[in-house]
Amino acid sequence: MAAAAPTADFGLIGLAVMGQNLILNAADHGFTVCAFNRTTSKVDRFLENEAKGKSIIGAHSIQEFIAQLKRPRRVMLLVMAGKPVDDFIESLLPFLEEGDIIIDGGNSHYPDSNRRTKYLASKGISFVGSGVSGGEEGARYGPSLMPGGNEAAWPHIKDIFQSIAAKSDGEACCDWVGDEGAGHYVKMVHNGIEYGDMQLICEAYDILKRGLGLSCKEIGDVFTQWNKGVLDSFLIEITRDILYYNDNDGTPLLEKILDKAGQKGTGKWTAVNALDLGMPVTLIGEAVFSRCLSALKDERTRASTILSGPTPKFEGDKATFIDDLEQALYASKIISYAQGFMLIQDAAKEYNWKLNKPSIALMWRGGCIIRSVFLKDITNAYRNNPDLENLLFDEFFTKAINTAQSGWRNVVSKAALWGIPLPAFSTALSFYDGYRTKDLPANLLQAQRDYFGAHTFRIKPEHANENFPEGKDIHVNWTGRGGDVSASTYVA
Amino acid sequence: MAAAAPTADFGLIGLAVMGQNLILNAADHGFTVCAFNRTTSKVDRFLENEAKGKSIIGAHSIQEFIAQLKRPRRVMLLVMAGKPVDDFIESLLPFLEEGDIIIDGGNSHYPDSNRRTKYLASKGISFVGSGVSGGEEGARYGPSLMPGGNEAAWPHIKDIFQSIAAKSDGEACCDWVGDEGAGHYVKMVHNGIEYGDMQLICEAYDILKRGLGLSCKEIGDVFTQWNKGVLDSFLIEITRDILYYNDNDGTPLLEKILDKAGQKGTGKWTAVNALDLGMPVTLIGEAVFSRCLSALKDERTRASTILSGPTPKFEGDKATFIDDLEQALYASKIISYAQGFMLIQDAAKEYNWKLNKPSIALMWRGGCIIRSVFLKDITNAYRNNPDLENLLFDEFFTKAINTAQSGWRNVVSKAALWGIPLPAFSTALSFYDGYRTKDLPANLLQAQRDYFGAHTFRIKPEHANENFPEGKDIHVNWTGRGGDVSASTYVA
Repeated sequence: MAAAAPTADFGLIGLAVMGQNLILNAADHGFTVCAFNRTTSKVDRFLENEAKGKSIIGAHSIQEFIAQLKRPRRVMLLVMAGKPVDDFIESLLPFLEEGDIIIDGGNSHYPDSNRRTKYLASKGISFVGSGVSGGEEGARYGPSLMPGGNEAAWPHIKDIFQSIAAKSDGEACCDWVGDEGAGHYVKMVHNGIEYGDMQLICEAYDILKRGLGLSCKEIGDVFTQWNKGVLDSFLIEITRDILYYNDNDGTPLLEKILDKAGQKGTGKWTAVNALDLGMPVTLIGEAVFSRCLSALKDERTRASTILSGPTPKFEGDKATFIDDLEQALYASKIISYAQGFMLIQDAAKEYNWKLNKPSIALMWRGGCIIRSVFLKDITNAYRNNPDLENLLFDEFFTKAINTAQSGWRNVVSKAALWGIPLPAFSTALSFYDGYRTKDLPANLLQAQRDYFGAHTFRIKPEHANENFPEGKDIHVNWTGRGGDVSASTYVA
Repeated sequence: MAAAAPTADFGLIGLAVMGQNLILNAADHGFTVCAFNRTTSKVDRFLENEAKGKSIIGAHSIQEFIAQLKRPRRVMLLVMAGKPVDDFIESLLPFLEEGDIIIDGGNSHYPDSNRRTKYLASKGISFVGSGVSGGEEGARYGPSLMPGGNEAAWPHIKDIFQSIAAKSDGEACCDWVGDEGAGHYVKMVHNGIEYGDMQLICEAYDILKRGLGLSCKEIGDVFTQWNKGVLDSFLIEITRDILYYNDNDGTPLLEKILDKAGQKGTGKWTAVNALDLGMPVTLIGEAVFSRCLSALKDERTRASTILSGPTPKFEGDKATFIDDLEQALYASKIISYAQGFMLIQDAAKEYNWKLNKPSIALMWRGGCIIRSVFLKDITNAYRNNPDLENLLFDEFFTKAINTAQSGWRNVVSKAALWGIPLPAFSTALSFYDGYRTKDLPANLLQAQRDYFGAHTFRIKPEHANENFPEGKDIHVNWTGRGGDVSASTYVA
């Protein structure tokens, strides 16, 4: 076996569902793939079943695995993020040669990919950290792929990656993202946005159910309708399927599912990163916290018997309200993506990455969980103006949100009166109203900080004068009443 | 000098405003304090001015400083958090003896205090990380002190700490918080809550200004009134002063202050910790993000000319609306403190600290920035029932929030229609409505995750049956329509 000439274009380690499907996908596109798994019985089972008759070979040791790969060797890891990735890198290293490529396709945290890019570069190996999105189906028939890391690797993997990736209007939903952990960073923000989209849909469902009193079937019909309009997307589509899905007893399975949301941490990473960079990515923050709140099921159950609230009472035309809700969901989604791109833009500056915003939008356009018609409009916005300061400043989105806002405001306003929680819809609206406000009440906050902690403040340029010069840190003795102003700079 | 017998009860390093004031405060209470500062000219200036005629002595080197302290030596650092603390610890160590005590009174991050407690214990030195709140005034006349770390130190510093601390109804606003970094942890949450309180006040001011069209003087009158009721607190009081404070030209200085909020990071730490622990501390999160948004002043100014919104049009009785606003602020504050205590409670479990909730509320009752009448009610709630699961379950607060909710809902609902951002008020209301909801829409979220990622879900106990047993991870083939249910456990 060891003497045979290498025949595989690509090697993949980790035969869980995502790994298996990516291999089948690559084989469908004419590549010969070598499969390996630490528990080697999985390799045999895979070769005898799903992989049978395809251009897929297997290996029972790392050494055998590497021996079957053409040079430069392209090894993709689809193993659990964290230590397993480092462990596999170490087991691979003795068998690799300069110019070989290790690709991590797991949900790794981007600082780990930063570190691995540098570490492997020092050994002459090109590291690629690639976001892979689309779940089982995506992996099998065309995922969204977001590769970043050592750019030297890109010419050697571009063909395979763009072949197996989803296509949108003929373009592959895969392009080079940027240096070091940029690929995993963009995937992280993608996941954060996914958290937001899912939370928004849950809130819409809750309003339709508890606010309007609709059945699952009726709500399914609403989602069917929405999937033909501006909200047309994978998540709306699967929500429709879920709402229509009945258990054996003929009642909706959905209503029987425990309302405790799980999470694997990537949404949290996005929120933490937003806090670290100081970017107001409020919708993802609320979406993560909503999952946390849902997890407190027992406490909520007790609270439901202690804490009171109003009973929702819908008056008016349901169809009109449903239109408002569609607009509310659309507008909130625009805000969420605008926030996500604000974060990416800031990260690029902070981490010194060249990121291509139109490509990022295109990569999310198909294959991944947040794929939608909407992302075509975002791609267009950034193609029209790659230096666009904010997505909301693109004419299409300025108009869209302006059209949407009356319905959006109506929904948020009604839910507050009805006692139905809309944390994501509400925070999106607050952000919109805050973002478009020239003079926020943070002047008072600065005054308070100066009052109790001498933290100083600055003066608005239009009010600058000799006492209060522009751009200078000013401290005032606030307790001296009646115009006793004493301005002085203060170094905290 | 070196041969003189030690006379100082207490040594303090760092003569910025907080350090100087704490020394003066301790001297007022009969303690002899030795002052040191790296730039020793500051020591001389302090001794010749503010410290003159008081039981305050100085030192010009660490050696001289230590030589003047009685045993066990009690050395407090009030220097910049981070490396300076570690540097001073290292310079002190050669001169200290077993049983001596180093107190860090800066705004250190609690993991650093965890580390320092362990490190110094290994050298026979007791470390105390103490939260100090109250700003300049508090430090001078009675701060809130939150000491934690090595409990062996407590009997030796209790007298000084409780003497110089603020008093509330005769009780010192200082008690032992808990092990390791527990003192700095509780101070961190205090600061997060402070961020929340300040943001809520800013939103109230904004609504009064832009929603009701009131002048600074009129808003000052409202705060004067509020300071006599349930909102009676330091922050409401200083807001009143700020609103009344006129510049030399007779117009309110407040309106000239630049609306870009600064931050020193402790609010962010709280939000990040909440995300890490999975506790929905949404109000602090929104308060931090609001500061971030305010910092984007130039971008907001551009947005204000591009993005449109409604013009607030107030109809009805202003006095009634102002009462509603008071209730909205009160209810939101209750939520914020409930969330803060949820976090503290979870941290105690997670980090294995014994924390005393009534004492924490008492420590915040006086001296610190968030001091208020309200904290007396919280102290009472936890004294009545130290095992109270949630502050909202205390009868007083259950009633208070129930009374407040109609006004609260009215304000949040109106602001959404008016286009005035109330991120903190809104998230508080969403939290309340989510927390008291037995069945949240997270069932849909779990179905979605299972649909696209086979992440599995669980069944509500009341719907469990043979196909769907309680407590089991279930995966369904959602795309097989028409009752084709295939439940199986799936290990991701």
